[in-house]
Amino acid sequence: MSQARWIWLKGEFEIYHSLLLHSRRQEYGADHPVMWDQATPYPGVIFKKTFTAEKDGSFTILARGRGRAKLDGVQYPVGVEIPVTAGEHSLDVEITCTDGTFPCIYIDSEVLRTDKSWICTHVTAEKFPVDAKKEYTTPEDNPHVFKFSYKTIVPEVEIAVRDGVLYDFGKETFGRLQIKNADPNATYEIYYGESREEALDKPQALIRQTVTGEPDYDLIPRAFRYIYVCGKIDGLTVTAEYEYLPLEDRASFACDVEKIRKIWDTCVYTFHLNSREFYLDGIKRDRWVWSGDAYQSYMANNYLYFNNDITRRTIIALLGKPPYEQHINTINDYTMYLIIAVYEYYRNTGDLEFVQFVWKRLRILYGFLASRADEQDYICHRSGDWIFIDWSPMDKSGNLCAEQILYWQTKKAMAALSELMGENGETYTAEAKKLKEQILRDYWNTEKGAFIDCYSSGKNNVTRHANIFAILYDFVDEDKIRSIYENVLENEEITPITTPYFEFFELLAYGKLGKLEHIQDKIESYWGGILDLGGTSVWEQFDPNKEGIEHYEMYDKKYGCSLCHAWGSGPIYLLGRFCVGVYPTDVAYKTFRVEPNPGKYKSFQGTVPLPEGEVRVEYADGKLSVTAGAEGGTLCWQGKEYTLKKDVTLTV
Amino acid sequence: MSQARWIWLKGEFEIYHSLLLHSRRQEYGADHPVMWDQATPYPGVIFKKTFTAEKDGSFTILARGRGRAKLDGVQYPVGVEIPVTAGEHSLDVEITCTDGTFPCIYIDSEVLRTDKSWICTHVTAEKFPVDAKKEYTTPEDNPHVFKFSYKTIVPEVEIAVRDGVLYDFGKETFGRLQIKNADPNATYEIYYGESREEALDKPQALIRQTVTGEPDYDLIPRAFRYIYVCGKIDGLTVTAEYEYLPLEDRASFACDVEKIRKIWDTCVYTFHLNSREFYLDGIKRDRWVWSGDAYQSYMANNYLYFNNDITRRTIIALLGKPPYEQHINTINDYTMYLIIAVYEYYRNTGDLEFVQFVWKRLRILYGFLASRADEQDYICHRSGDWIFIDWSPMDKSGNLCAEQILYWQTKKAMAALSELMGENGETYTAEAKKLKEQILRDYWNTEKGAFIDCYSSGKNNVTRHANIFAILYDFVDEDKIRSIYENVLENEEITPITTPYFEFFELLAYGKLGKLEHIQDKIESYWGGILDLGGTSVWEQFDPNKEGIEHYEMYDKKYGCSLCHAWGSGPIYLLGRFCVGVYPTDVAYKTFRVEPNPGKYKSFQGTVPLPEGEVRVEYADGKLSVTAGAEGGTLCWQGKEYTLKKDVTLTV
Repeated sequence: MSQARWIWLKGEFEIYHSLLLHSRRQEYGADHPVMWDQATPYPGVIFKKTFTAEKDGSFTILARGRGRAKLDGVQYPVGVEIPVTAGEHSLDVEITCTDGTFPCIYIDSEVLRTDKSWICTHVTAEKFPVDAKKEYTTPEDNPHVFKFSYKTIVPEVEIAVRDGVLYDFGKETFGRLQIKNADPNATYEIYYGESREEALDKPQALIRQTVTGEPDYDLIPRAFRYIYVCGKIDGLTVTAEYEYLPLEDRASFACDVEKIRKIWDTCVYTFHLNSREFYLDGIKRDRWVWSGDAYQSYMANNYLYFNNDITRRTIIALLGKPPYEQHINTINDYTMYLIIAVYEYYRNTGDLEFVQFVWKRLRILYGFLASRADEQDYICHRSGDWIFIDWSPMDKSGNLCAEQILYWQTKKAMAALSELMGENGETYTAEAKKLKEQILRDYWNTEKGAFIDCYSSGKNNVTRHANIFAILYDFVDEDKIRSIYENVLENEEITPITTPYFEFFELLAYGKLGKLEHIQDKIESYWGGILDLGGTSVWEQFDPNKEGIEHYEMYDKKYGCSLCHAWGSGPIYLLGRFCVGVYPTDVAYKTFRVEPNPGKYKSFQGTVPLPEGEVRVEYADGKLSVTAGAEGGTLCWQGKEYTLKKDVTLTV
Repeated sequence: MSQARWIWLKGEFEIYHSLLLHSRRQEYGADHPVMWDQATPYPGVIFKKTFTAEKDGSFTILARGRGRAKLDGVQYPVGVEIPVTAGEHSLDVEITCTDGTFPCIYIDSEVLRTDKSWICTHVTAEKFPVDAKKEYTTPEDNPHVFKFSYKTIVPEVEIAVRDGVLYDFGKETFGRLQIKNADPNATYEIYYGESREEALDKPQALIRQTVTGEPDYDLIPRAFRYIYVCGKIDGLTVTAEYEYLPLEDRASFACDVEKIRKIWDTCVYTFHLNSREFYLDGIKRDRWVWSGDAYQSYMANNYLYFNNDITRRTIIALLGKPPYEQHINTINDYTMYLIIAVYEYYRNTGDLEFVQFVWKRLRILYGFLASRADEQDYICHRSGDWIFIDWSPMDKSGNLCAEQILYWQTKKAMAALSELMGENGETYTAEAKKLKEQILRDYWNTEKGAFIDCYSSGKNNVTRHANIFAILYDFVDEDKIRSIYENVLENEEITPITTPYFEFFELLAYGKLGKLEHIQDKIESYWGGILDLGGTSVWEQFDPNKEGIEHYEMYDKKYGCSLCHAWGSGPIYLLGRFCVGVYPTDVAYKTFRVEPNPGKYKSFQGTVPLPEGEVRVEYADGKLSVTAGAEGGTLCWQGKEYTLKKDVTLTV
């Protein structure tokens, strides 16, 4: 028998922890609830198992929740020892939670254990798989508490400032602040700052707490580099418990440009800080899960950890539960990224079981999306919708081109997923074909040689976004690609992208066109620019034309800009994908290509993870050596192709 | 301004208290979760109000849940005093609960109060009304706790039996047992019994608890008449806090048959015990809300309290929330009663606002029902369905006639409700017409002069149920009614009804046919029979052929039969409707008829509530006097009609 684990209805762990996560935001001392409706766990679950006891014995059911067992139809309370005779048995365990949590059970005996072989229902006719995680294996474990790792960290510098002390932990971090030796009669004001300026700016610091009455404080985890404590600070000890997931880095990158190593490390650190229950947008402000941001994190993940569990957790959390009454995160595009992401996840991992699990919900979500299209089957603005795409001036006065290209890609994903699920995907394919013809007819502007934002306004405004999608998703032919490259990407008159979020998509387009040097330059100027200003993690936004604390302003808040934002981790993907050059050519990297491209680097060494094993590439002095930790690889180098053998270094 | 009340998203109070209620069942010391999936509250709600402050002032938001306010776009934490200037303002209050409860807020200041004029969302685009109940008006009130009234009751008799003491509270009751002066070192076993035999039968008593460690115990509320306490009983005081709702009886009935007064009182008491958060089935065993049982309680309610609030609460709780993945209580017929009940509720009350509130959910529920019909649009058995109708031998081998007649009535209710909601109900009407033709073709057996259970088996089996529905719901013409009366109702060869549940429907059919004496006989023999055996409340089932504790056995459990079951309250309706003879002839009793029928009684006095006011009828020595507390009444007596004037006694 396998090791005993706590089990629960698959998906409920994510739904519950998403609910908790999205209810934790605070700003200026007030709780800040999430701006969309959230799913909740099913209160009741019946866990089912038929099993053969090898000998007489007994077992005890531990439960999170209340309920009872029925062994061969005979009722037992949970928590008592239940005798079993040798032979076949049928067990139902009915558990209910009324406190917002989700039912879990645990059995560890010689005759029976809880593990993934169980099935369950949420008290309907439909049967579902259970989930069981390796983190929850002992009777004391509680799946209602997400398990993190902790490390004590101490401030590098303490300076008295005005009526308090400023503690500098040396770099951006996230953790539980620990204050010891406080005077229980004194009141302490604590200000958190990603920047020194924020921590010291009492009225404007986003995150703060006032405490009193205790000698020691163990505060809830928050983001900070600086902590400013005001009050009776004599003898106070301030440390923190850094809270993190021990995700293994399976990638590396370094090159002759020394700065790149630091940029890489900062991107990796930024990504770790945002890889928690799910992929967060940033660790200070929202700490929410946004489907568009997460879409980029799935990509970074595949080039750093290749950890499927956190991607699955994020998708399940974003997907929530039907009925769908609003878009994912309220944003039309974010619904579509989620559907596209499920197919891309499958392509990268071959994880059919996961597709099976999400399929019913995904299909209902697609139905919601499609039901809100207009009579031409264009994505349009309906009550409650947020047509986002990017923080960028764009002609949003009518149906937006970028939304339609995403919709086309979504239909293609639905077609492919349908076929995977043994359903007929032809309707989606036919609709995608029709949609593409319409988009080309309505949005392609021959005069401008580009897609316009919106055809109904007559403004014929061109922005980069739809044109980038057209390249990314192979929506157009070579001629149009060339036209977009010249008339949009390389055209300085077209408003430049201002967010690292869409900058990443733009760089992907450059990468697809083989323009690695543009990517390399951008990494040095943009990411390097943040480092030059003292950034220890990648910012949500960076405009080199701003000065001083102007950089920290966003959303009309003096320190509204997140200084540790997941979407800043793009170089992990960009360098792995386009410089080391590894990418799959079949499901789950059954076959893959290694197309190294030094670009402007004279030398580089990079490692990129495969589902199993890694690809290691070293390039120096015109010599390339490549080692792949799995079969199926083809090296493409200077126009030639070489078959890679597992664990055999090929030098060319 | 109106009085300040706690407010919440309408319907969430019922969803939450239903979840709690359905998670309380215990049997033989084990928790017994409910056998269907339950809805949960939305975790997040935004409360909205635009208001004009007459002068400068301030207000403080109290919240159950965490969140913030935005007054004219400016953020404030909840719980702090928020200043307002004279003039117009816009306030959003965003609250989240992660503990399974539902967001509620309360404001009571001179410039602003929470009341039913607010609106809210569950963080989607759609706006909903708030609810506010008169029971929650002070800052300390908590809508997460259902408010009951309490009265101390003491045992009438204490007798030492074996190793304990048996306390007899004199009649069936429901309350929190209070044990005082216990020895904290001693362990006490407590057995609850609706009957003496049950309380004293340690292995078989359904409800029991073992306590230790305290000098005093305040136990959770449960049903009992007898309590058997074993342990160190010297000096122990045992009392109880009777837990109830102070619902006002607006009906009465007495007649020359003395026993009827006792039967009436027992029915009323039984109904009170089961009128709690919602209409329960019974107070001892399930304590769940069953749609079929509740359907009969709505009817009793209208002839006893005419309290719309408990009916609405019950309907909201039963309806739960989409998506619907199983029938209400898992039972096909129970889904249909719920839809029919909403229309009947409207007919009796004119409460359009309530129909508006449930309409969206009801339409989705109907969609679920219809989507599971077979290709002929017959209700059939699908995975997870329970085709119930009654505990009675019936040919259920194919589509059941009784289900189809209910389905016909359901379509008619949907048609009428659609028209009320300003939608076109013609499709439902057309479908009902087609369905009726089919039913008459497939199920009416000319030879038997009755509807058969099932046409596909070829057995042509006749039971009473479908035939009763055919009369109740005016499904058939006079000829068929006569045929059914002779060939089914009065035919002793057709298996008699054995549950008070369907007995009530059968008696309704007799009532419709003017056969009051049959009803009166049945009340005396059936309900009187229970009283003769010492019943202090009406039983779930009563078979005069059984003896002693055989009466208490049901569902293969020695004391499985509930001795206080809501569906036993039928005489309240039957006597009010057919003897006093009051019934509406227009929506909300705008017009109503009073058709007194003494039947076999020589004299009677009865009161029946109208939405406002009551109808009082007295009959003695061939003289009748009638007083109606509202306009719109017509007295029908001995073939003549008299217009009733409000509060004017008419004697004929």
